[in-house]
Amino acid sequence: MDNAFEHVRELCSRVRAAAPTVAVLDHAARCAVLRAMARGLVANTEAILAANAADLASAAENGVPTVMMDRLKLTSERIGAIAEGVEALIALPDPLAGGDSWDRPSGLHIMRRRVPFGVVAMIYEARPNVTADAAALAIKSGNAVVLRGGKEAIKTNCAIVAALGKALSACGISPDAVGLVTDTSRGSAEALLSMRGLIDVLIPRGGKGLIRNCVDNAKVPVIETGAGNCHIYVDADADLEKALRVAVNAKCQRPSVCNAAESLLCHRAVAEKFLPDFYAATRKWNVAFRACPLSLPLLPEAVPATEDDFYTEYNDYIMSVKVVDSVLEAVEHINRTGTGHSEAIITENDEAAAVFMSLVDAAAIYRNASTRFTDGGEFGFGAEIGISTQKMHARGPMGPEALTTVKYLIEGNGTVR
Amino acid sequence: MDNAFEHVRELCSRVRAAAPTVAVLDHAARCAVLRAMARGLVANTEAILAANAADLASAAENGVPTVMMDRLKLTSERIGAIAEGVEALIALPDPLAGGDSWDRPSGLHIMRRRVPFGVVAMIYEARPNVTADAAALAIKSGNAVVLRGGKEAIKTNCAIVAALGKALSACGISPDAVGLVTDTSRGSAEALLSMRGLIDVLIPRGGKGLIRNCVDNAKVPVIETGAGNCHIYVDADADLEKALRVAVNAKCQRPSVCNAAESLLCHRAVAEKFLPDFYAATRKWNVAFRACPLSLPLLPEAVPATEDDFYTEYNDYIMSVKVVDSVLEAVEHINRTGTGHSEAIITENDEAAAVFMSLVDAAAIYRNASTRFTDGGEFGFGAEIGISTQKMHARGPMGPEALTTVKYLIEGNGTVR
Repeated sequence: MDNAFEHVRELCSRVRAAAPTVAVLDHAARCAVLRAMARGLVANTEAILAANAADLASAAENGVPTVMMDRLKLTSERIGAIAEGVEALIALPDPLAGGDSWDRPSGLHIMRRRVPFGVVAMIYEARPNVTADAAALAIKSGNAVVLRGGKEAIKTNCAIVAALGKALSACGISPDAVGLVTDTSRGSAEALLSMRGLIDVLIPRGGKGLIRNCVDNAKVPVIETGAGNCHIYVDADADLEKALRVAVNAKCQRPSVCNAAESLLCHRAVAEKFLPDFYAATRKWNVAFRACPLSLPLLPEAVPATEDDFYTEYNDYIMSVKVVDSVLEAVEHINRTGTGHSEAIITENDEAAAVFMSLVDAAAIYRNASTRFTDGGEFGFGAEIGISTQKMHARGPMGPEALTTVKYLIEGNGTVR
Repeated sequence: MDNAFEHVRELCSRVRAAAPTVAVLDHAARCAVLRAMARGLVANTEAILAANAADLASAAENGVPTVMMDRLKLTSERIGAIAEGVEALIALPDPLAGGDSWDRPSGLHIMRRRVPFGVVAMIYEARPNVTADAAALAIKSGNAVVLRGGKEAIKTNCAIVAALGKALSACGISPDAVGLVTDTSRGSAEALLSMRGLIDVLIPRGGKGLIRNCVDNAKVPVIETGAGNCHIYVDADADLEKALRVAVNAKCQRPSVCNAAESLLCHRAVAEKFLPDFYAATRKWNVAFRACPLSLPLLPEAVPATEDDFYTEYNDYIMSVKVVDSVLEAVEHINRTGTGHSEAIITENDEAAAVFMSLVDAAAIYRNASTRFTDGGEFGFGAEIGISTQKMHARGPMGPEALTTVKYLIEGNGTVR
């Protein structure tokens, strides 16, 4: 633990020292760095793949589950795609552009400028693509970055960061601007959470346990991302054909992601018609249902839902179901059990939609559309750092400007109060 | 502790239940509530002053220091001024106005709306004016509020909240929208910090100890305010007449506030000329100096500064002094010891000013002006919730819009991904 702490503190100090070298770059210079990073990844494909092969071999030895192996595995095509993702940031607008200024009766001239946070930290799991992605988003927004990936990907991450570091150096930037925590003990993650003054914001990307641990224990500012207990509410005045299409898509198109639906709420007036149709439509994926007493008889093979089921993000072909008597009961249930991510109402009734959209407390609220659209790309933001489920600073899909803050620059002439 | 926890949880649950009744009000309706609140304060002057007299009597018995007694004491004039402060919010723009919308190739119509946080909590000390002020800022921005003031002001705060509650009721709003924690034990403050899901943001207003405790221990999102270890850096190319005026103002005009200067940095080239003049100019207030080895001989009666002195916010007629060799040394010292509040450079040299303003990491950075201007009123924001010294969400003086977040409302037509 002490070694891990010292390792992390030393690394964070170096990254902090390098941060001004990124912060002073104009947008053209930051884009040149991104281009060099993308090329560096492709140029070092061989070294990255060799490191990845070593990680995969260790993972196989350690019995890492197949789904995690899939996330860990790189190919030259995937490295190419990662590099393209880095290059795609170039075309996005400068997140530090804009700002305004005004004069005051005191004689002061006040300028408000958008500036980088300084040092951004990311904690994530065994997905080496996040390493390049997070580094690129940091550079785009003028920040230095501390990366702490999962231990399964450590060799791959080292190779990626080495490639990026060479690209930074070639652009005259300190390679310390992209720092990797190479100690992957539990202690190093804990240490990272305590680096007040060295880290300006921490963004965890990964499973619920990882995110909860960061939010509960961090002494540095955290942006909470990703937990998604999302609901589809089928209203009494729903077009049931639309409801079927949306609910099937939200549950089945990609159940492992945070914007997939976990729970179906159905108005009592349409439950007997809708639920059997929904059951039939989900046979292709064998969705398993955890049902309230009223929906249980309408869903063959369903098991009774416990109270816990309604708080559970399954990330799987499992869904809780509850029959409600009104849109207000749906709203109350969602605000009590939801995670503030994405919620949908299916209705042709404008009043019910207005009540739902005004009273549900979540980042993204849909009418007659799937929750699966909560995503930076689908919103038109170009790139995404994550989906914020908190209300402070950023909410919903976060673009690069979520890694920026403001600074007031004030000019006087010996002006006093 | 258990009783305090239950009391706070029950109160926060009631405030949360009342929050939607405020959130749905349009700006005109919120302003009508503000008008009723202002009138309610004046109409209940007698009851508030009686409660305040009881608080003052207890405080005198308990040997509360004079400076705190002064903050605690109300008069009918002060109640009138508080009511005027509430009314003044009416003229400010609606912090929930604005928003934008766009269409996506998927067929979705995305609307981004500014919405209230929901429930805002404030912890503060023995200043009953904050009670009305915080309640009014919450209503202006569509929020409900949980207030937890100091135990010395509890009777006054109860009387103020009773007056505000009557005003809310008269407007058809639940009086629970402005909730007061009446248990002023230490346990109730601790309980408030743990109300995840019931409180959307907590803003501590008060001394360093209060704020540090909230930031370190809160499980709810916190906006850190007020700590101000502010510096004046007198550059080699300073106009020393301006430097003298600004430094005297920043240190002496009101030393107890967070934007007062605590430390003077002086370039070696001008130290021998400037420091004796500054010493002479501050005799009127008998400012005591804690000096580095180079400045010590230039400031009669100064004592040697310890490393701790350079991290200390005195809030008094005391100042640390350090001679530096360059603007970069000043920047490094400020970024290491400062609190990111307000920092000033006095210089006629554009390059030195540009370096200082670009590299100092603080909310407000001044050239040739006093740090005392960091204040919502002086910035032209009309009202102020506090000065944020963090980078997340809000930085510098916060107006009512700091109590808002965004929400995406998305309309489709059975749209799926």
